[in-house]
Amino acid sequence: MDVARVSGVSYATVSRFLNGNPHVSPEAAERIAAAVRDIHYIPNNAARSLVRQRTQTVAFVMHGEPESITTDPNINTIMVNANRRLSDAGYQLVVLIADSDEAGERIARLVRSGFADGWILNNLQVDDPLFTVFRSVDAPVAVSGAGYGESSPFPTVDIDNREASAELTRYLLGKDHRHIAYICGPEFIPCASERLHGFQEAMGDNFDPTLVVQAEDWGRASGQKALLELLQRLAGASSDTAPNVPAVLKQQHIDALVCGNDCLAAGAMQYLIAHGVRIPEDVAVAGFDDSPDAQATNPPLTTVHQPIGQFGVQMADMVLNQLEGDEAPSIVWLPTHVVVRHSA
Amino acid sequence: MDVARVSGVSYATVSRFLNGNPHVSPEAAERIAAAVRDIHYIPNNAARSLVRQRTQTVAFVMHGEPESITTDPNINTIMVNANRRLSDAGYQLVVLIADSDEAGERIARLVRSGFADGWILNNLQVDDPLFTVFRSVDAPVAVSGAGYGESSPFPTVDIDNREASAELTRYLLGKDHRHIAYICGPEFIPCASERLHGFQEAMGDNFDPTLVVQAEDWGRASGQKALLELLQRLAGASSDTAPNVPAVLKQQHIDALVCGNDCLAAGAMQYLIAHGVRIPEDVAVAGFDDSPDAQATNPPLTTVHQPIGQFGVQMADMVLNQLEGDEAPSIVWLPTHVVVRHSA
Repeated sequence: MDVARVSGVSYATVSRFLNGNPHVSPEAAERIAAAVRDIHYIPNNAARSLVRQRTQTVAFVMHGEPESITTDPNINTIMVNANRRLSDAGYQLVVLIADSDEAGERIARLVRSGFADGWILNNLQVDDPLFTVFRSVDAPVAVSGAGYGESSPFPTVDIDNREASAELTRYLLGKDHRHIAYICGPEFIPCASERLHGFQEAMGDNFDPTLVVQAEDWGRASGQKALLELLQRLAGASSDTAPNVPAVLKQQHIDALVCGNDCLAAGAMQYLIAHGVRIPEDVAVAGFDDSPDAQATNPPLTTVHQPIGQFGVQMADMVLNQLEGDEAPSIVWLPTHVVVRHSA
Repeated sequence: MDVARVSGVSYATVSRFLNGNPHVSPEAAERIAAAVRDIHYIPNNAARSLVRQRTQTVAFVMHGEPESITTDPNINTIMVNANRRLSDAGYQLVVLIADSDEAGERIARLVRSGFADGWILNNLQVDDPLFTVFRSVDAPVAVSGAGYGESSPFPTVDIDNREASAELTRYLLGKDHRHIAYICGPEFIPCASERLHGFQEAMGDNFDPTLVVQAEDWGRASGQKALLELLQRLAGASSDTAPNVPAVLKQQHIDALVCGNDCLAAGAMQYLIAHGVRIPEDVAVAGFDDSPDAQATNPPLTTVHQPIGQFGVQMADMVLNQLEGDEAPSIVWLPTHVVVRHSA
């Protein structure tokens, strides 16, 4: 009403302008904008939320170390797809980054204070303190990557990491590979150990724990580093000795390498090629994800396809279900399949 | 006060719990949480904002097509760095995605309604309707990638794209390359045309407009596609004929290829290698950005380094300056330099 008075424009027109309705003449818009500046009009988003008891926002929490958020090839695809779905339903997606304990605490405060109408938790780990926070509030939640599987306390979207990894391994066994090395994704990430378990199951008696090595994170550099570590260990060499890569592989009869994701595989592959190893002739290499990396490598990567965008769509739908008072499914399993390219 | 009454816990303790203060006994926390559930406690974030007239949030707007947001290798690095800086200053970064006209309109409403205390606009283009919206409100703003340069209406962080590209080109000229092809970033992106201008300036009389081709977006696939289009055009071939790549390059004396960014270069390089062209022996290739892609290619990419994370830090600082009542610099130029690897 103050803005209407100062600008000399009707309350209804001011309201239309402030709500972004395009039916405001340029002249009126100009006068309203000037009045807003002159009287230092106070933001009314808070007041509006209080009246409606809804914020019309859904928060998307990105969990992970800063390094993993900047190198994750999937996270923005999930986010953009969730955004589109929520946007069609009239909700604004707001993304919050949980990359430190302090960020987690700030987000916990936002959860308790009703910052958003619903919450999408991407890559939230089972031991994250936010799990407890969400148990104590009544907000719609959907999660992915928590590794809870069927026992998740919140509606969950996931793939069957174990079975998908086993299927990829059976494909390699079918190509007569028997001495298969494995670069596992980082510790504490449930899907990383699920993928390793699937590999181990499918390998059966051929599984050799000395050929398994753990990467520090999901990035390419870690793939290189993990492979180097494995080769040094197999050669009985110290960590400052460069191994003769083709010789070590031959001596250990290693004929294939499976990696916890495509980035690790891309890094390992670059290292192998730089040391004169031919792929797939000398060693077959396979990844997981079917992210853009899988087609950017040379040769392109044999991998497991997962429908990344669908994580976003399904988590958005689960939150929308709950906002509309419906029950969300407790878990949605997304389909995967092996994609054969030239690396294996 | 309702929660305090129902839970039998003091108002001060309830307030501490709801504000995320850890000094609440587990037993009290349990009782407060139960009361919050029982009485369906109404979110108080809106009320708190109204009392304080500050939301303690800064919005980060990601502009671009959905495809460019999912393939941009820099955007999350900028976001994570802005988040850290704002977080240290007690502000919560909230990310909004402006990937469609409707999203832009929704964000315009949020701007007018005081959704956030400040705004970071990443890759906002000069003709974006949000520019007009921000002119009409009194909120702290910082922008990057707008291509306004010194004449930006808002505090701006940028690099000198033209000079950086010229420097890279002079490096190639110094290596005796004279017939240099150029894959330009997408139309309407100011930095893409600035980089082309810098290339043209440095080439001088050696500049040959028939060796310039435009990519559809910044992704690897577009790099491949643009190169194919250029080769077909140079060979006078129709778009459904596969050119003899080494023959066309030789016939046209093309000895180097500069690309508007690293992803375009990675895509073009993959295509060249797949068609038997040796890099750098037959054709030198250079990119721009020094993104992770530049080290993932084989051979690694000669490129222009820009300090990506600093875009986030500087934009955050500009908004914080304004929030504290200080003046932000109208423009901060970030330094760049040529990084020589093995591709050129």
